[in-house]
Amino acid sequence: METTAPPYPQTGRNVPTRARERAAYDRATVHAILDGGYVCHLGYVRDGAPVVLPTLYARSGETLYLHGSTGSRPLRGADPGVAVCVTVTHVDGLVLARSAFHHSINYRSVVVQGTAYQVTDPREKAAALDVLVDHVVPGRAADSRPANAKELAATAVLRLELAEVSAKLRTGGPNDEPEDAQLPHWSGVIPVATGYGAPIPAADQAAETPLPDYLKPGAPRGAA
Amino acid sequence: METTAPPYPQTGRNVPTRARERAAYDRATVHAILDGGYVCHLGYVRDGAPVVLPTLYARSGETLYLHGSTGSRPLRGADPGVAVCVTVTHVDGLVLARSAFHHSINYRSVVVQGTAYQVTDPREKAAALDVLVDHVVPGRAADSRPANAKELAATAVLRLELAEVSAKLRTGGPNDEPEDAQLPHWSGVIPVATGYGAPIPAADQAAETPLPDYLKPGAPRGAA
Repeated sequence: METTAPPYPQTGRNVPTRARERAAYDRATVHAILDGGYVCHLGYVRDGAPVVLPTLYARSGETLYLHGSTGSRPLRGADPGVAVCVTVTHVDGLVLARSAFHHSINYRSVVVQGTAYQVTDPREKAAALDVLVDHVVPGRAADSRPANAKELAATAVLRLELAEVSAKLRTGGPNDEPEDAQLPHWSGVIPVATGYGAPIPAADQAAETPLPDYLKPGAPRGAA
Repeated sequence: METTAPPYPQTGRNVPTRARERAAYDRATVHAILDGGYVCHLGYVRDGAPVVLPTLYARSGETLYLHGSTGSRPLRGADPGVAVCVTVTHVDGLVLARSAFHHSINYRSVVVQGTAYQVTDPREKAAALDVLVDHVVPGRAADSRPANAKELAATAVLRLELAEVSAKLRTGGPNDEPEDAQLPHWSGVIPVATGYGAPIPAADQAAETPLPDYLKPGAPRGAA
């Protein structure tokens, strides 16, 4: 159903000034890029200067939830709302051309601009935290102790609607100049991907605690 | 020599408001985090709103070089300088606690704030582009066709001094509440790392072109 929804509108702000052919606005592409990661870079303006901080996020429908502590800077005064830019980037490959100029990176990124608001409703906040935990490790929210009232109060969640959104992607091999094709330099792509190692149990883990299915090799997991 | 230099000064802007015990200001830590990546998230302010874009970078001493096209938005008007925030983040692990609240991410990040300037001197620009290429793939700059005058003119490089800088790190296992230690949920860390696949030659690569040593398995390479 989502894939038949209209694309995100192009505005004066979300159309790139360069490499426009790499831009995408359809929801399926944007959602896939967002769902493939869990650490975004959250930008906001503080005393007139830009600040960019790595921040945990998760998507729920057309809403992005951002995780923070109530003491963190971007969230102070986030009611009635703070202007933010949320960017998610996946690096897929190093593109080596014969010419230094045409070296590039294969990547998929999404930029979301808008106004973020604190989630104040306790039920929405608790649900959003489940979404965040399950986004990083699908199945984990149900297999952990839920937050109590004190913990919920110490956690802040921002919500940001997916309205002003764009994706940008580069794929494929190098785009060398035709006259460079005969140069002797190796050219092509070095694939890049996020990998996960074997789970390391906590030092105080009881020996008989089994590794849950959702942590076994092959379980679905996003890229960082 | 670098490691005996004094740490970056703590200012009103680069001391985190939370988890201060995770902050670091020594140059060796900051340099290692910067040198371990090549895609930063560059934040700037446009019409009063924050913008965050993935951008290629490389460090040279106490200077950060940022790559862009002369048509890209952050660089317009970057002379006499534009206020930026450059953030580099490596995700090292997913931290699964018994409680949802204590779930976390092991990471290393650096935040650089300051004013970025266009590199206008052609020799510094050419040298900076070599640094950028060699930062992504050490040894590559010497094994590719250097940029010609037209390509150099179409490329923009920003320089940002490492002056207002902080690192933030989280390592180790989950910090569960003592009363949660007996809960049956598996807890521990899932390591996360960037991996590189086998090089894919360009479609028009001559069959006899050898893979250079710097692209063979085990050659030094940063994380994305």
